[in-house]
Amino acid sequence: MARVINFNAGPAGLPLAALERARDEFLDFEGSGMGILEHSHRGKQYEGVHNEAIALLRELLGGTEDHEVLLLQGGASQAFATVPMNFLHPGRSADYVLTGGWSEKAFEEAQRVGSARVACSTAVNKRYARIPTQDELKLDPSACYAHITTNNTLFGTQWRRTPNTGAVPLVADMSSDFLWRPTDVRPYALIYAGAQKNLGPSGVTVFLIRKDLLATARKDLPKIFRFGVHAENNSLYNTPPTFAVYLMRNVLAWARSLGGLEAVGARNAEKARTLYGAIDARPEFYRCPVEEGSRSAMNVVFRLPTEALEEDFVAEAKKAGMVGLKGHRSVGGIRVSLYNAVEPSHVATLAAFLGDFAARRG
Amino acid sequence: MARVINFNAGPAGLPLAALERARDEFLDFEGSGMGILEHSHRGKQYEGVHNEAIALLRELLGGTEDHEVLLLQGGASQAFATVPMNFLHPGRSADYVLTGGWSEKAFEEAQRVGSARVACSTAVNKRYARIPTQDELKLDPSACYAHITTNNTLFGTQWRRTPNTGAVPLVADMSSDFLWRPTDVRPYALIYAGAQKNLGPSGVTVFLIRKDLLATARKDLPKIFRFGVHAENNSLYNTPPTFAVYLMRNVLAWARSLGGLEAVGARNAEKARTLYGAIDARPEFYRCPVEEGSRSAMNVVFRLPTEALEEDFVAEAKKAGMVGLKGHRSVGGIRVSLYNAVEPSHVATLAAFLGDFAARRG
Repeated sequence: MARVINFNAGPAGLPLAALERARDEFLDFEGSGMGILEHSHRGKQYEGVHNEAIALLRELLGGTEDHEVLLLQGGASQAFATVPMNFLHPGRSADYVLTGGWSEKAFEEAQRVGSARVACSTAVNKRYARIPTQDELKLDPSACYAHITTNNTLFGTQWRRTPNTGAVPLVADMSSDFLWRPTDVRPYALIYAGAQKNLGPSGVTVFLIRKDLLATARKDLPKIFRFGVHAENNSLYNTPPTFAVYLMRNVLAWARSLGGLEAVGARNAEKARTLYGAIDARPEFYRCPVEEGSRSAMNVVFRLPTEALEEDFVAEAKKAGMVGLKGHRSVGGIRVSLYNAVEPSHVATLAAFLGDFAARRG
Repeated sequence: MARVINFNAGPAGLPLAALERARDEFLDFEGSGMGILEHSHRGKQYEGVHNEAIALLRELLGGTEDHEVLLLQGGASQAFATVPMNFLHPGRSADYVLTGGWSEKAFEEAQRVGSARVACSTAVNKRYARIPTQDELKLDPSACYAHITTNNTLFGTQWRRTPNTGAVPLVADMSSDFLWRPTDVRPYALIYAGAQKNLGPSGVTVFLIRKDLLATARKDLPKIFRFGVHAENNSLYNTPPTFAVYLMRNVLAWARSLGGLEAVGARNAEKARTLYGAIDARPEFYRCPVEEGSRSAMNVVFRLPTEALEEDFVAEAKKAGMVGLKGHRSVGGIRVSLYNAVEPSHVATLAAFLGDFAARRG
């Protein structure tokens, strides 16, 4: 069948150009007579891909001179543990800003490693409708680091500014909005991002770790969990997830072909404007529970008047070739993920569907 | 170009049928309008693949009723740490049998977690030429577990029997010979294996954990490192490496299509016989440093009279369409990896090349 319009929350749809490139050389990478996933991770072909992926990340972001760039396994869920294992020192504490389910998980895992405290939570009745203001952050000036989750896939909120944490290193889980627009990474001591939203398939996680923070890492850990060991070995300390890195390389090359993060950001802003516009145009029918200044451009959540209408909405959209619209099971409603690979024309199609559905069923 | 004959040590060549299946449905998995790597790990399509991979592992091995089967990230290198984190209890010790570089790494990582001791080492001048006898194992009857590495990729040795560790749980790193022939898994309390030799691409690791051992696991760890958490969640606690699991499913289906592990084992025995036969037929030219009873059917290592001849051997073989023959940088010489995907006809081609090269250069 034809490709569907994929609004999955992750693993998410990937750019067709990146996928076709992978398919076309799946059995024979660059005339080597074998697929990239059959190459040794110590050979020059894979090493070229690996280094190109890292170089593309640096080129797209810019300003990464003070950061190590690592490509590791385990996803953000593993980073929830390895970040405090490396940087949460005994006798000290780390600050966590809670803005959704993923920041809660990061906080809980940190508590299993050491001492962690909540610097701010915007939860009301276990629901998060907004990002805190700078004034709301009750930061511990002696914390090992302060942790935020820049985009919240369940509740559809997103930090649109970088918080000021003073001398305390700022750590950010950017899994669901990494590379969504130009970002000054210099204020971030550590950024981590699972690939399966904007970067590639699941199975590889990007870390940017500023060298001043890395120098403070604990050394009394198993080697596999020491970020410093991976930095010294250019993320080749152990066998990397070679195919996931390769496909990420293809996705990053596609992002560059669009015109880099300026173009990616403009595209994403247009997509968000189109969809929120369609929601706000029919306030009697569609309701976005997120405060306007906290709305995510990556995950747009909204409700219909009844759950029965929400079910019909998802079913009819599927018949029209649009999938991945059901809200997370813990939240309900509708969720539309607008990650980088989603085309503006796809969002226009969905926006028209919103108008049509409301006219027919409202 | 045509596909080359790939003797890589890992990531290794994969069965053509498994790769072609992946390529053909890369953009549209089972008529869903998207690739399997674009599907949600909570959706029925991926869940079907995930459960089929686990069911195929159980079917191929047989006798796994008492084991949990987990599919996790991190490779064997991460298991070197997570196994002692889960099962090496404070105030107690674990036994390690050293038969090569990978068992050394496993031992070193365990020492960073807790107390570990060497139950036996067959090293002579930092080289390992054999597997120990049962009598050589100086086991601690109160150890939390005893760890072996069933196949040693650097030195070309392989356990051909299961050691008796009495009441002490037996833990085995089978990364480089998992599924190479029928194996009674019941004596093993824990088996782990990175996929990139016999199972699939790098990025997924199989664990078989007997429930009696799992019940003893520590619970005071970050959740992501608790095998019990992954077992309770059918390896879907966090986002799995979906494409790697999918491709493993294809490889396992191919192994079943050959006739299961009986057929795989007979094929591998024939391949090893052919290659060792070609080596032993010219003892004045080729020399295998491994004792005969310890020779690996997966990684065949041998030397030529001089390093210059070894370089020529590798270069000429490459011209003849055979790659991946260079020995590991820490050992030198020639290494031929005969993992499951290597066809008997490929080994016959190599054996003929050995005869021809020796006749011309010997």
